[in-house]
Amino acid sequence: MSLDFTTVATQFVAHYYSTFDTDRKALAGLYRDNSMLTFEGAQSLGAQAIAQKLTSLPFQKVKHEYGPPDAQPTANGGIVILVTGQLIVDDEQRPLGFSQAFQLTQDASGQWFVFNDIFKLVLL
Amino acid sequence: MSLDFTTVATQFVAHYYSTFDTDRKALAGLYRDNSMLTFEGAQSLGAQAIAQKLTSLPFQKVKHEYGPPDAQPTANGGIVILVTGQLIVDDEQRPLGFSQAFQLTQDASGQWFVFNDIFKLVLL
Repeated sequence: MSLDFTTVATQFVAHYYSTFDTDRKALAGLYRDNSMLTFEGAQSLGAQAIAQKLTSLPFQKVKHEYGPPDAQPTANGGIVILVTGQLIVDDEQRPLGFSQAFQLTQDASGQWFVFNDIFKLVLL
Repeated sequence: MSLDFTTVATQFVAHYYSTFDTDRKALAGLYRDNSMLTFEGAQSLGAQAIAQKLTSLPFQKVKHEYGPPDAQPTANGGIVILVTGQLIVDDEQRPLGFSQAFQLTQDASGQWFVFNDIFKLVLL
């Protein structure tokens, strides 16, 4: 089976931000016990801690807008993805720029999950 | 030997942008034959093609400014890095925002090189 990394990346990114914007706690299912998140410099390890971090972010509503993700295969069958875009929280008028890098890996059952996740706001 | 990934990442990023801004063709030494670059969506494979791409960018002078990089270890001993910053080309007054994701890997001799490199301008 050849890895169509662009398709996997595009589908993952659409699913990730759709889940983030509608049901943040369900993001836990996209991480595993050895997953890492660095969110604005704060580090979380493991699906449970990562979901706790993401659900405790201090806004009620959020909407991500982003361009086509760029993706590359890694040496060990993973996929590196870089996304840039804007997010709007609650009733703010001014969008915030963001950049997010992921490395996806397959688990023993072949399901893709997020091994590395680094999120940064881009202040302008 | 434990991997001090933050130190490796910080030193790499300082070396990378210093080399980019002063002697772009020397960047070839930071890539290998299986390295990948996606630069504003354009893909290059291998150190030679990547150096060719980077040295042919249409500016004479460039200066990168960036904040502390975020880094995480990968499952196979690599390091994922996300950098955001601004660059100024030639005599432009207005800086351009950029985001760049790297995955570093060690070669057989233990030297770190860039396996994955994704660069995007962030337009504001």
